[in-house]
Amino acid sequence: LDVIVGPDKLFYAFHPDLEPAVAIGQGDVVRLRTLDAGGGQLRSPDDSLEGIDWNQVNPATGPVYVQGTRPGDILRVDILDLTVGDGSVMMAIPGEGALGDLLTAQETLILPHDDQDILFRDRIRIPKRPMVGVIGVAPATGSVSTGIPGPHGGNMDCSLVTVGASLYFSVGVPGALMGAGDVHAAMGDGEVMICGAETAAEVVLRAQAVSLKGLPTPFLRTSHVLASIFSAPTLDEAADGAAHAMAEFLIRMVGIPVNDAVALMSLVGDLRICQVVDPLKTARFELPSWVPTQYGFTML
Amino acid sequence: LDVIVGPDKLFYAFHPDLEPAVAIGQGDVVRLRTLDAGGGQLRSPDDSLEGIDWNQVNPATGPVYVQGTRPGDILRVDILDLTVGDGSVMMAIPGEGALGDLLTAQETLILPHDDQDILFRDRIRIPKRPMVGVIGVAPATGSVSTGIPGPHGGNMDCSLVTVGASLYFSVGVPGALMGAGDVHAAMGDGEVMICGAETAAEVVLRAQAVSLKGLPTPFLRTSHVLASIFSAPTLDEAADGAAHAMAEFLIRMVGIPVNDAVALMSLVGDLRICQVVDPLKTARFELPSWVPTQYGFTML
Repeated sequence: LDVIVGPDKLFYAFHPDLEPAVAIGQGDVVRLRTLDAGGGQLRSPDDSLEGIDWNQVNPATGPVYVQGTRPGDILRVDILDLTVGDGSVMMAIPGEGALGDLLTAQETLILPHDDQDILFRDRIRIPKRPMVGVIGVAPATGSVSTGIPGPHGGNMDCSLVTVGASLYFSVGVPGALMGAGDVHAAMGDGEVMICGAETAAEVVLRAQAVSLKGLPTPFLRTSHVLASIFSAPTLDEAADGAAHAMAEFLIRMVGIPVNDAVALMSLVGDLRICQVVDPLKTARFELPSWVPTQYGFTML
Repeated sequence: LDVIVGPDKLFYAFHPDLEPAVAIGQGDVVRLRTLDAGGGQLRSPDDSLEGIDWNQVNPATGPVYVQGTRPGDILRVDILDLTVGDGSVMMAIPGEGALGDLLTAQETLILPHDDQDILFRDRIRIPKRPMVGVIGVAPATGSVSTGIPGPHGGNMDCSLVTVGASLYFSVGVPGALMGAGDVHAAMGDGEVMICGAETAAEVVLRAQAVSLKGLPTPFLRTSHVLASIFSAPTLDEAADGAAHAMAEFLIRMVGIPVNDAVALMSLVGDLRICQVVDPLKTARFELPSWVPTQYGFTML
């Protein structure tokens, strides 16, 4: 039987002194039941931002202590399953997000789900494309709000973080103290309104330390691509960081000659945007998995 | 018979006083034979950047005078066919591109093509994914090097500019003075090395003025998405410009209420990077074509 962590076990910042919600062994599976980014406080169009408790915003569920995981390890977290709730919420907030200057009327949008789709304004069906907004581990020092992305992961809002993906994090503290939350039933790259379709969810994860010393983190693998992820105050810095992290991986770990690594990145790699609103920006560099394979490298 | 413009008709800046290479009527088809971004000067690994004539770099073929096209019109340019040459070239230039700090050895890479693939280092086959790096029209005033992107189009290096795509430009001068060049046999988003697989090509275009007054340009349509394109000194500004251009299109032209337009952009739109090296940065905002269709808008 899988270990279950319910939405009574919430935290609002990744830091070394978090009390573990549960402990699991290497390679064990855990089910995290997560609340939406509003902490479940916005349930009807009449629920406005003025009425909510901001201390309950951006909850993550956990943290999970992964036994036998030590600082300096690379923790791989596989997303095995992801089930979203029966509805989601969005917030139009004048002045907030990438298009906040255009928003004049604050609004809470409630979007019901059926089995396949998100219903937008009772007229448009949007296919569900669930992804996990917040996932990460405790940093070695300091405290990072669950609303912020960084080297520890956190609020990266990367649309690739979905079923079949594996995340790689550098462990900062014994047991890693992993958690997740802020699931979206759908979200486009950029998350320009500052929210996707914010929903409660169940996230099924498997966690284990892997021998990938030197891997730039956060790093990600899907069935098709590898991706480096980098967050910074500007999109230019985030993009630069993500591109350099992928180059470092290809040159140092895979062993591709510098000119070849950079040429392949330019030919078949994609520099992409995760989000521009958190308020740090997050970029990723995606490269087809066949590139390291061609050079004899197997990703653990 | 289509009108053909050969690579003896080259220009190196978009400006109002260009001499037309050829004139075509509304909706006519023209075949542009283009040189690679090096002007065909780099043909073997021994050809180095020191030996080339920099006045022949980044040629565009044309310009094409589209009869009956007036300043203020929107010119739609359909890419009907795109055939690349039998090889391409890449340049590793220390200090240049997004990863120039990692490049220590200047090198000219020659990549032969077969029917399907690009051959990289005689060991890796990369599927051809041809796209047009430079395409645009003359601005109303001023002169813009064909190496630079801008409101007139130019060196946008947008990977969506391929067969089946239509580009939309604001016409600056009578006849539009359209041209294209800098075709890549493959290029990933970002173009981090400052080049894709640079190749000679034949680009088959159809051009006509369409009634889309107020469309933010450059704009693009494929079979699946609409995209706004914006270039600026920083990626943050380029991304902001592309997102605002799409919002403006959805709100003013399609007539979607502001909150709904921004919410749909956040749910199903993708803010993406075209290139970060030209030296202005170019971003695009992609939205599935079904969004304006749901609101009764037909893109001409």
